[in-house]
Amino acid sequence: MSDTHTDRPLRSDARRNRAKLLDVAERVFAEKGTSASTEEVARRAGVGIGTVFRHFPTKGDLLEAVFVARLRRLADEADRLAADADPGEAFFSFFTQMVASAPEKNALSEALTAAGVDVAETTSPIKDDFRRSVSTLLERAQRAGAVRPDVGFAEVITLLVSASHAAEHPFTAPDVQARALSVLLDGLRPPAGR
Amino acid sequence: MSDTHTDRPLRSDARRNRAKLLDVAERVFAEKGTSASTEEVARRAGVGIGTVFRHFPTKGDLLEAVFVARLRRLADEADRLAADADPGEAFFSFFTQMVASAPEKNALSEALTAAGVDVAETTSPIKDDFRRSVSTLLERAQRAGAVRPDVGFAEVITLLVSASHAAEHPFTAPDVQARALSVLLDGLRPPAGR
Repeated sequence: MSDTHTDRPLRSDARRNRAKLLDVAERVFAEKGTSASTEEVARRAGVGIGTVFRHFPTKGDLLEAVFVARLRRLADEADRLAADADPGEAFFSFFTQMVASAPEKNALSEALTAAGVDVAETTSPIKDDFRRSVSTLLERAQRAGAVRPDVGFAEVITLLVSASHAAEHPFTAPDVQARALSVLLDGLRPPAGR
Repeated sequence: MSDTHTDRPLRSDARRNRAKLLDVAERVFAEKGTSASTEEVARRAGVGIGTVFRHFPTKGDLLEAVFVARLRRLADEADRLAADADPGEAFFSFFTQMVASAPEKNALSEALTAAGVDVAETTSPIKDDFRRSVSTLLERAQRAGAVRPDVGFAEVITLLVSASHAAEHPFTAPDVQARALSVLLDGLRPPAGR
């Protein structure tokens, strides 16, 4: 009984459980998309279904938390790259990583839509953080002359969405996808830098 | 009775009916996507449902014919542009037109998928004609130095698919889409031509 009243160990256990659930859930949803179940997440995380529901009352809550955790990780990665010695290399590396993880991202988006979650309505502050981190990376690359000055966050995200859809197209050979992506990245370079 | 045996007038009527049905069907499917019905196509074409079924036994047959007619029209447009005085202008104009018609194209693709038609299996010779016409347009622009030499038909189609998905994204403002498209088109220009 008494351990349910000792606050700190329980809270840290709960935090660990929550982080583990999100990690497992991200992998399960990426692999199975809309057909992934909360039961499978619980099983693969080695916890009871009650533990999942205690942290995330609905499948939509779990999916939204996975979405937020993913954006958090990407924002952290952008911040890490913003300290890179080569601002152009940092920006293009981030863009390429985002495209490479597109299939998992699209599977997650489909699962969110199927669960009735509209991420455009998600009010988490992570969206602003993500925008700020990516904008910093972009502006740094622009100041270094590695990216054309006439694009902003919105254009970069639109191009990311474009490239991400192509990266998932089942009939496109990987080498064709790679060349198409490099054409798109070249378009982002300033005239002198191409 | 006798008019069903006089061949030419009937065949030319049938051809006109078929062309009209395809034209109306393309508009209906573009507007309504998967929710479009064969009944609505018949009604808006001013013919009985029996006439539609005589030409196209199933909704899938009708959709596939619309798909083929669309590719035929695009191939004809590419051929027309291939006679243009400015090969670069002709190529980029074709690319931009394709992207502009992407929402209708995607609605048609969804209706095809919903009707169980896999256009990858469509054996119509129009696919080869389309590939040949677009390749001619591309190679002509490359010879004129308006398009980088290291891309082929496959890369151009992949970039078209990319840009087309972005063109449909409901949260993206038209001016952002236009700037993203121009970044992508710049990527297609040779280093010296940017």
